[in-house]
Amino acid sequence: MKLYGYWRSSAAYRVRIALNLKQLSADHISVHLVNNGGEQHSESYHHLNPQHLVPTLVDSNELGEFSLNQSLAIIEYLEEKYPKINVLPTNLEDKAVVRGMAQAIACEIHPLDNLRVLQYLVKEMGIDEGQKMQWYAHWIHLGFSALETQLERYAGEYCFGNKVTLADICLIPQVYNAKRFNVPLAAYPNIVRIWENCHQLDAFIQAAPEQQADAS
Amino acid sequence: MKLYGYWRSSAAYRVRIALNLKQLSADHISVHLVNNGGEQHSESYHHLNPQHLVPTLVDSNELGEFSLNQSLAIIEYLEEKYPKINVLPTNLEDKAVVRGMAQAIACEIHPLDNLRVLQYLVKEMGIDEGQKMQWYAHWIHLGFSALETQLERYAGEYCFGNKVTLADICLIPQVYNAKRFNVPLAAYPNIVRIWENCHQLDAFIQAAPEQQADAS
Repeated sequence: MKLYGYWRSSAAYRVRIALNLKQLSADHISVHLVNNGGEQHSESYHHLNPQHLVPTLVDSNELGEFSLNQSLAIIEYLEEKYPKINVLPTNLEDKAVVRGMAQAIACEIHPLDNLRVLQYLVKEMGIDEGQKMQWYAHWIHLGFSALETQLERYAGEYCFGNKVTLADICLIPQVYNAKRFNVPLAAYPNIVRIWENCHQLDAFIQAAPEQQADAS
Repeated sequence: MKLYGYWRSSAAYRVRIALNLKQLSADHISVHLVNNGGEQHSESYHHLNPQHLVPTLVDSNELGEFSLNQSLAIIEYLEEKYPKINVLPTNLEDKAVVRGMAQAIACEIHPLDNLRVLQYLVKEMGIDEGQKMQWYAHWIHLGFSALETQLERYAGEYCFGNKVTLADICLIPQVYNAKRFNVPLAAYPNIVRIWENCHQLDAFIQAAPEQQADAS
């Protein structure tokens, strides 16, 4: 398998964690989201991912190579193809709760705070740096407050009980991002605790942005 | 089952389509997103959905009632609990492609253009109505251009071949929304064709916002 990603992309970071947890290896290919006007817009990458986003997973079957887009779709694919070490509970209700927490991050926080959105706000909407930081922190606080309430009910060592799941896979990159933008997290004791617990695990440590070959 | 939704919510619209396609019934309970400062912020709804978003599905098992959040997690739950009429392909690669298309809408377009984001842009970022429409259209065009490229490869009568899938379930509410904001769609012939094909089906017709009891 080949994983096209970028060290600081939260979505690529999720897939790296999932690969590590599931003890799968892939060749990591860097798509630099900033250099050269953004390598995700190149002709060659367009064929792999018309959305011009990372990550893309390239895998193969008996018919040849194929590419998959969107981090959660990629992780669900890996989960079904390699079920031995699972990142989703098997019980239907539990699985839905975990997917719901993952999507609360992937659909409600991350899309509003990612690089291309912040760039568009500044360049096209004319907001200033202070407003950009306000925007960034607003969606973190709104999303983390709701998640913290859910974690009071469901969390153990990790987001859902005492086993790492897809919810942790989505949470950790989002916390990494929030820390990078200096958003204070003291109001979210469960989130902070889960962050610390996950960082005891090699799968998370090795997936961290600074550990990637393209980190700069 | 009980579905807490709102006629104009794209995410609730997705779950209504899925229920109809799968020939499942639920009591529909309206959570008015605008009246009374937004009923999704009420104390009673907070217990069902700390994210203060619609939809919420309430179902029960031998232990009693439980609530599920996030439209795609809800639909995946319905898919696994009631697999007879399926909205995901069974082949792993195909399933990942369909989920990828669904998430390209649910994670890249819809979160940027939903009500609370548009309200925040105007009220807190100080952008004007013209900029709001520019913002709205920008994310539709960016997302639909990429999707159109994928549809050239995968579409038949519907987004993925000739069977309705989760990708159509996400696409139709997003097109409904784009039309409501008068975004021109002529550049996306596959999307327009799929919209027309889906509107031949009762499951889509009956799930439309204007058909709901709380439409105004």
